[in-house]
Amino acid sequence: MEHNLQHTILLLTRTPHVLNALLRDLPEMWTLQGEGEKTWSAFDVVGHLIHGERTDWMPRSRMILQFGETRTFAPFDRWAQQRESQGYSLEQLLDEFSRLRTQNLAELRNLNLRREDLARRGRHPALGVVSLSELLATWAAHDLTHLHQISRVMAHQYREAVGPWSAYLGVMQCNGHSA
Amino acid sequence: MEHNLQHTILLLTRTPHVLNALLRDLPEMWTLQGEGEKTWSAFDVVGHLIHGERTDWMPRSRMILQFGETRTFAPFDRWAQQRESQGYSLEQLLDEFSRLRTQNLAELRNLNLRREDLARRGRHPALGVVSLSELLATWAAHDLTHLHQISRVMAHQYREAVGPWSAYLGVMQCNGHSA
Repeated sequence: MEHNLQHTILLLTRTPHVLNALLRDLPEMWTLQGEGEKTWSAFDVVGHLIHGERTDWMPRSRMILQFGETRTFAPFDRWAQQRESQGYSLEQLLDEFSRLRTQNLAELRNLNLRREDLARRGRHPALGVVSLSELLATWAAHDLTHLHQISRVMAHQYREAVGPWSAYLGVMQCNGHSA
Repeated sequence: MEHNLQHTILLLTRTPHVLNALLRDLPEMWTLQGEGEKTWSAFDVVGHLIHGERTDWMPRSRMILQFGETRTFAPFDRWAQQRESQGYSLEQLLDEFSRLRTQNLAELRNLNLRREDLARRGRHPALGVVSLSELLATWAAHDLTHLHQISRVMAHQYREAVGPWSAYLGVMQCNGHSA
């Protein structure tokens, strides 16, 4: 199935609204707790998404368009939010994510990418050669992987409260798959 | 950790807004496709949530309060939405889910459940004795298990588009755990 950039943009547009609807002003029991040591809370995930807006998706897209495979993307810092989110409330992070996402999607639309642009290639520090199309599809799938994670982390807070029903709740069996 | 009914109600209130923000008017590629034979699309999941609002959470709560362990809950039909969603658009289902959820939460609030009410017990056809507290916590966790599922089903549509990044996306490794 060919990647449809319009479908990607439509999904990317929604994520800030989804996270607002789910998380804004929710009790901290739901938003600040993770799944144990060295795991992320919903708050941490929003910080991670902000870091991606700043350093990953559009910077890497620009690098592919300007330099192709001749330059390697800067590695992504998966723990940057531990520094960058300090002192902020979840509501401030949600605002910042929404602002950056809107700005990045405006820039993406302005690029007016054609099919041949999407086929252009760049170099990932670990994965090797990747296409712009793959990068942009991953941006959308990355939103989904973190929505998947947030729903799991929140469900984890009720693992005891649900009693025997935990056996029926798929999300309670999910081992995280590292995200 | 004791179950906090207020936290449960706050989460239950949000789910229709989350699903609206994520799914309403999205291309059918995202909403009508599942993960293969006998799997659910986002459309199917919303139908399943509607069936739960009609037949599961509040009817079972009422049964516990009226009859305790002396009556067994009617088994839940996990495939009811195949019949009941026929002829409806996703947007109509989202409206219906929102309407039923609002109505059910109004009824739940009107019950003014006290701690001793939450400790009351009923009988599940497969799990045996369960408490009202566990049932209501499961209502919220059930929303999360299906948000987890929807994000996974949607990500599945991009399993090829993301190319080598699929290895980094936890949601693409999730085997579903039956939901």
